[in-house]
Amino acid sequence: MPNDSSYPKRGSSLPYLLEPKSVAIVGASSDPSRIGGRPLRYMIEGGFAGRIYPVNPNRDTVQGLKAYRAVGELPEAVDCAIIAVPAKLVAGVLEECGARGIKSAILFSSGFAEVGGGGKALQAELSAIAQRTGIRVLGPNCLGVLSFTVGFYATFSSTLDAGFSEPGPLAIISQSGAYGTHLYAVARNRGLGVRYVITTGNECDVDVAECIDWAAGVDDIMVIAAYAEGVQDGAALVRSLEKARKHGKPVIFMKVGHTEAGAAAVASHTASLAGSEKIYDAVFKKHGVHRAETTEEMLDIAYACGGGIFPKSNRIGLVTISGGVGAQMADYAIKRGLDVAPMPEPAQAQLTENLPFASARNPVDTTAQFFNDLSLAGKNFSLMLEAGKYDIAIAFFTLAAASRYIVDPLVRELEDLRRQFPDRLIILSLLGPPDVVERYRNAGYLIFEDPCRAIVAAAAMVGFGKSFAASPLSDPVIPVALPELAPLPARPMSEWESRAVLETAGIPVIAANIAESAAAAEEIASAFGFPVAMKINAAGISHKTEIGGVALNVGTAAEAGGTFEKLMSAARSARPDADIDGVLVSPMADGGIETILGIQVDPVFGPAVMFGLGGIFAEVFEDTSFRMAPFGREEALEMIDETRGAKLLRGLRGRPPGDVDALARTLVKLSEFAARAGNAIESVDINPFLVFSEGRGALALDCLIVPKGAAAAGAAVRSAY
Amino acid sequence: MPNDSSYPKRGSSLPYLLEPKSVAIVGASSDPSRIGGRPLRYMIEGGFAGRIYPVNPNRDTVQGLKAYRAVGELPEAVDCAIIAVPAKLVAGVLEECGARGIKSAILFSSGFAEVGGGGKALQAELSAIAQRTGIRVLGPNCLGVLSFTVGFYATFSSTLDAGFSEPGPLAIISQSGAYGTHLYAVARNRGLGVRYVITTGNECDVDVAECIDWAAGVDDIMVIAAYAEGVQDGAALVRSLEKARKHGKPVIFMKVGHTEAGAAAVASHTASLAGSEKIYDAVFKKHGVHRAETTEEMLDIAYACGGGIFPKSNRIGLVTISGGVGAQMADYAIKRGLDVAPMPEPAQAQLTENLPFASARNPVDTTAQFFNDLSLAGKNFSLMLEAGKYDIAIAFFTLAAASRYIVDPLVRELEDLRRQFPDRLIILSLLGPPDVVERYRNAGYLIFEDPCRAIVAAAAMVGFGKSFAASPLSDPVIPVALPELAPLPARPMSEWESRAVLETAGIPVIAANIAESAAAAEEIASAFGFPVAMKINAAGISHKTEIGGVALNVGTAAEAGGTFEKLMSAARSARPDADIDGVLVSPMADGGIETILGIQVDPVFGPAVMFGLGGIFAEVFEDTSFRMAPFGREEALEMIDETRGAKLLRGLRGRPPGDVDALARTLVKLSEFAARAGNAIESVDINPFLVFSEGRGALALDCLIVPKGAAAAGAAVRSAY
Repeated sequence: MPNDSSYPKRGSSLPYLLEPKSVAIVGASSDPSRIGGRPLRYMIEGGFAGRIYPVNPNRDTVQGLKAYRAVGELPEAVDCAIIAVPAKLVAGVLEECGARGIKSAILFSSGFAEVGGGGKALQAELSAIAQRTGIRVLGPNCLGVLSFTVGFYATFSSTLDAGFSEPGPLAIISQSGAYGTHLYAVARNRGLGVRYVITTGNECDVDVAECIDWAAGVDDIMVIAAYAEGVQDGAALVRSLEKARKHGKPVIFMKVGHTEAGAAAVASHTASLAGSEKIYDAVFKKHGVHRAETTEEMLDIAYACGGGIFPKSNRIGLVTISGGVGAQMADYAIKRGLDVAPMPEPAQAQLTENLPFASARNPVDTTAQFFNDLSLAGKNFSLMLEAGKYDIAIAFFTLAAASRYIVDPLVRELEDLRRQFPDRLIILSLLGPPDVVERYRNAGYLIFEDPCRAIVAAAAMVGFGKSFAASPLSDPVIPVALPELAPLPARPMSEWESRAVLETAGIPVIAANIAESAAAAEEIASAFGFPVAMKINAAGISHKTEIGGVALNVGTAAEAGGTFEKLMSAARSARPDADIDGVLVSPMADGGIETILGIQVDPVFGPAVMFGLGGIFAEVFEDTSFRMAPFGREEALEMIDETRGAKLLRGLRGRPPGDVDALARTLVKLSEFAARAGNAIESVDINPFLVFSEGRGALALDCLIVPKGAAAAGAAVRSAY
Repeated sequence: MPNDSSYPKRGSSLPYLLEPKSVAIVGASSDPSRIGGRPLRYMIEGGFAGRIYPVNPNRDTVQGLKAYRAVGELPEAVDCAIIAVPAKLVAGVLEECGARGIKSAILFSSGFAEVGGGGKALQAELSAIAQRTGIRVLGPNCLGVLSFTVGFYATFSSTLDAGFSEPGPLAIISQSGAYGTHLYAVARNRGLGVRYVITTGNECDVDVAECIDWAAGVDDIMVIAAYAEGVQDGAALVRSLEKARKHGKPVIFMKVGHTEAGAAAVASHTASLAGSEKIYDAVFKKHGVHRAETTEEMLDIAYACGGGIFPKSNRIGLVTISGGVGAQMADYAIKRGLDVAPMPEPAQAQLTENLPFASARNPVDTTAQFFNDLSLAGKNFSLMLEAGKYDIAIAFFTLAAASRYIVDPLVRELEDLRRQFPDRLIILSLLGPPDVVERYRNAGYLIFEDPCRAIVAAAAMVGFGKSFAASPLSDPVIPVALPELAPLPARPMSEWESRAVLETAGIPVIAANIAESAAAAEEIASAFGFPVAMKINAAGISHKTEIGGVALNVGTAAEAGGTFEKLMSAARSARPDADIDGVLVSPMADGGIETILGIQVDPVFGPAVMFGLGGIFAEVFEDTSFRMAPFGREEALEMIDETRGAKLLRGLRGRPPGDVDALARTLVKLSEFAARAGNAIESVDINPFLVFSEGRGALALDCLIVPKGAAAAGAAVRSAY
């Protein structure tokens, strides 16, 4: 059966699912309120542009259309079959569809992987059929597809009871059917045009990543809103997000399941393997995706994306008729990383001359005077954009701009302004009847009721602009200059072994030598000079301090010899089974800022590098940042600066700044190692990593690699020092 | 003139301003688009329930009403005069109004304190007239008043161009006219009923605090939404907020001007003295006020308050037809401090029996099955509320509940549920046409489109509930048992002087003695036992470490003698002018968790106590909490636990917990001292304050009191150690 060239291939086959020319509905019902009746009704009422074939063994016609008794009797191998039958019958019908050469299928039924046990096995069968016959499958446990371009309404969601909306620039791609249709309905109520709603459900075949990949290539889609509870193929998602970025197509992603209860809710709902939340953040950041927390945020940003202006910088000019609201906007903008840069002094003077009561610094507080002489409104706004070089402007005009005496002249002024500054992101915060709002919208402006929501959207647009302007990420390529990575053992490694590997990878580690006798310890310590640090070295003993295996500030040769014996006997009595290789001797490092570096290999997305301040900072404040490996200097600096601890490294209140350069260099090297070693390791912990003052470098004082399969030791890796 | 008993007194006179029976409009215009024409038009069209007298020297009638040539010619001493004349004429007119016995006035004009210089003087004149004649004045630079109860529309805001709305439970009180009317318009668009909008502008007489105080006593007002840029009379605001709390009247407050640019915008706009933001937070927390950051948050919460159900606990049950949205809701609820407590196991089992596909833990994921047998819907919901003891429930039903086949039976089920659990806060997140939404609303439920916004509102309702249930705060009363506070010097104090005062106030301080010679230092140190800490003691030298005035771990008597000389000579050479009292000698304290305690006396709100983790934590992470003094143990524990550093004190990952009891006791003592000393000090710094492990107490190692007027030293207080 397979290998027939008429079968669609993965990647090019989604149009069969989303814009089919012919559709069969298996389980078609005459009752338009039933699951098998609704899609038929919606397509008939909505004017589906293709051929429709109801399949029902007991009827000649269904809802006025000629019905077929079985899939095998269909007059053509349709592009898409909607399968609305009980779970236990689905596999059989799907098999028939495959055999008939049908190109895609949408499975509504629940009772598969989401219920666990037998449901999982049932779903595996569906995946196998899809694989074997080549039929592309959406679902099961989904709410299907809405394609507003061709009137293909393959859903039983009641959302269409409210009528059919015009297609717009937004594609909604959601694992959850309930959420995807909710999002659509909210968007519709706001007048935000949606082109496609795709709900992927349990994803036995087609997943969110494939849909994003497809949507990234569709010209008429200007923005993608995605929703997922978990992702199984991290690489595919990454590829699709990167494709969207390359096409300058903004992706807004809601990924749920952060907190424990949230994650529990997801776990009991889907069979998805949820990557850790910090890893998702890192993936989204790397590919310029905006991660949204609420529906409102998602749609506000989607609406702004529809304007197609992505600012070149984060400089924002604020105009307000209320000083208080100006302050509120400024607060909010700064919190979201926008630069509320003051106007240049001469321009301030000129503005003040035009409007004596205004504060002209930024926010520019025009007071209600703004509306007294509207010929000044455009002039002042223009002066502000010109002199302030703001790539974004938000004006809080509220009801004042909707006053019947003001609309005409103000719209004229603003039309001129728009022509003068076509590439600035300008948002008007105003309140008024729909027809008035429409006039400002038609003048080329984004309209928000609430100025704070406008700021959230503007900040997201800055993020997209920055991401689109960045050079396309190359596929993770390892610098050729690096020596080949020696194979790692499939067992816990000791500190001594770990440091050798990391040193080769370019991580600066403190000098050390290993002593196998008290005499050797004395000799090594004397060679370093005193004081020294001494630590037991044994694969499998990662909690060295807890078993009394660490001595700091060892001051004399004699003390070093005695310490050797003490450490060895402490380790032997605590862990008689352990394979102890001796004692590691190092000089004591003095000063510097304690940080932690690490690698975490995520089962879904692969290796990520972690950075944080050391000591209890990381634990108490969870002040860490992650990036997917590998990355360059700029990303390393970004990840340092997004921790609050960066303040300390940058020189807090007169303290000397740390050698951030050396730290960034090390993070880059670690990321390269992570990318090379990815599959061979579970995690790496470098703790502490001491960052000395500017120009004086940085040093790993302790480190541990947990090779893949050495999980028992991995669990303990956090407290290695 | 004054002392006439017909003049209104402060506190009882606001009804003249807000619900007058007679109104004069000075500067009344025939042009209904002008500032002097609009209030007249709005009152005529809106059907003002009282008598209206236009005042205009040039016309016999204005907008169809008989006009008067001057205030002196008015036929009665009206309750309220709306004064719409240029700034320079305002004082004269106000004086006439006072002379005529008019009880209140509303001043629209700008050009007063907000423009600085001459404007300030003009405004001072207005205040003086109000004081002298007893007339109560709203404004200047305000948008007046909207009173929907009597149709008193004393405003020139164009907001009423959209029509007149029915009075509802919300009172809006705003310094900013633009924001107050914006908030009203957004509320109206949402169908949220507003009873009064009061804009106070520059507050030459009536301020936000007085309006809150009044609104707290009005039965028909169920919730107060306030907006301020700055507050001049902190005590009055505190009294008004506490009155609202005692009356169980929720106050939602937006206070703008947090960040630097935000604060700059406020500074250039009003003449208000803005208290520090942390102090505002502390004041609001103490009196149960919800501080809102956005308009949306404000109105969402105001809407929820209109339901009048304030939950008894933060236990929340979540119902969802989408597992993913359930996860999202759970995440969001946990972040906002709600307790997504799991259902008891037997109830979970019973739910699962009723609905096999549901996850029954909490969130309860019913899937779309929920709607298949609606007789189960009520039963399951009821079981959940009963067994889970949730004081709050939020159900994400979205469009599904609006389906035409579902509304009737579901509303019936929900009506029963409402009767069964009248005191639970239950919110439905649903989408549907207005008439459908109305039916659920009429069944007694709060309706939110977005589940996350419902959670924000629910969390605020928990806060109000907790605050209303707390015993009324007594006025700051100092425990009589405390000894009288000795007068503090009006100059910088030394550590030795500071510790004596704080020890008397009940703060545990480390043992210490003062040495005035090397021999005395040796003797004192020997008596304590070694090692000791030695610190220069001098009023005015607060940066002891920086001038080489501190020695730690001094190990022998001889060393102590030498150290004395070293410290004295370092201090003398660094600060030849300083009055050095000798060297303070203490035992070295060992172990414990470093914290910082402090007092900051705010010029507007008085003394607040600060707590934070010590070292660089407070600086890097701004992880501090504030409370207004005095307070008891419970508040002290709250302020400890709201810092992230509390994790460390509570015993982080196997570390021993700190003596939180001793810490809380000290905070209470410090707050009592702050309340007593309030006016005599500027600040107190106890840094570090070491908290030992449970049962082992806590000790101040260093401290400094900055008396009032000793500001120069005060600036340096932060780095006392």
